[in-house]
Amino acid sequence: MVIQQRLQIETRGRNTYNITRQVAQVVESSGIETGICQLFIHHTSASLILCENADPTVRSDLEGFMSRLVTDGDPHFEHTLEGTDDMAAHIRSILTKMDLSFPITQGRSDLGTWQGIYLWEHRTHPHRRQVTVTLYGEAE
Amino acid sequence: MVIQQRLQIETRGRNTYNITRQVAQVVESSGIETGICQLFIHHTSASLILCENADPTVRSDLEGFMSRLVTDGDPHFEHTLEGTDDMAAHIRSILTKMDLSFPITQGRSDLGTWQGIYLWEHRTHPHRRQVTVTLYGEAE
Amino acid sequence: MVIQQRLQIETRGRNTYNITRQVAQVVESSGIETGICQLFIHHTSASLILCENADPTVRSDLEGFMSRLVTDGDPHFEHTLEGTDDMAAHIRSILTKMDLSFPITQGRSDLGTWQGIYLWEHRTHPHRRQVTVTLYGEAE
Repeated sequence: MVIQQRLQIETRGRNTYNITRQVAQVVESSGIETGICQLFIHHTSASLILCENADPTVRSDLEGFMSRLVTDGDPHFEHTLEGTDDMAAHIRSILTKMDLSFPITQGRSDLGTWQGIYLWEHRTHPHRRQVTVTLYGEAE
Repeated sequence: MVIQQRLQIETRGRNTYNITRQVAQVVESSGIETGICQLFIHHTSASLILCENADPTVRSDLEGFMSRLVTDGDPHFEHTLEGTDDMAAHIRSILTKMDLSFPITQGRSDLGTWQGIYLWEHRTHPHRRQVTVTLYGEAE
Repeated sequence: MVIQQRLQIETRGRNTYNITRQVAQVVESSGIETGICQLFIHHTSASLILCENADPTVRSDLEGFMSRLVTDGDPHFEHTLEGTDDMAAHIRSILTKMDLSFPITQGRSDLGTWQGIYLWEHRTHPHRRQVTVTLYGEAE
């Protein structure tokens, strides 16, 4: 049994966006009891991560770390036509990945207590991002 | 055909722990001939990696690199309530990921000769870590 | 329905190699309409990434960033027997991962317009690299 659904996520620029609930709704309405939920973002300047979901300073510290690691407008970059954040966004996305999978158990997203699913927008301007959710497994 | 099993891994603090054999046992007892093995760790301060499995200095060099890249107690961090290793552990986990998939071929884990599966504990204190193994594919 | 095929990719040393077309051919000849394509590289010194596929300077900037982040011949490294690029190659592979999954939709690789699949060879010498493609899903 395979179920596939496309989500559209509107971002308001560089930030992390919690999509845990939207994904959970796809899982819970699927009828799959045991299996895998696979998420995929169809872009090269935004990524999907699991992150601590309780204290917002975890995500601001993460953003701070990443912006120091990959400098916007790094003078080494040749790919600069689309702005100082663009090449950094590609690197940030590759370091944090565009695909993500987790188990479905007893009909639900089987995440840890402190794990939230976030879309990480790496561009500074707002974007409409496409995420495909593919579920596969066995119904009850 | 979908099979799911939970492993509990006791860690003794920050280090890499070889779980290749435990995972292989789940694969080999499943009866699945061709498919995928998906691993998921239900935490945000430990991760799952594939690493060279022959020379232990690969893993100590990896640890050294990561601890220089993500500094414990970095004065930029605001999320410090749980200790100087906590925010670093979240970042280290996101950079190395909490999910991992590899093929099952002829009823076995189809890893390269030098690939071992490691749980990377990023906290300095011991923890009990939960890993879900989900296998799907076809029996012979 | 599960289909598995092994690809052999000859690399000419450290660089990114576009394997999008080879993977697409496996997907399109499989008969799977809706599902997942999972890629796995059986090595610890090469990795699989999704990267912007239009402007080659994205990939040269990415290589430049990574070679500054993980220094070949870093004097901290103890694992040096196989050359100055070897330990760096292990770290680069772990930071960018050896597994990759994306959806199959309407019988095709459902990648974003600007997403290409690249094998990233991290060793400076040529290698023959093994990649397993596992497809699972439903036929029409």
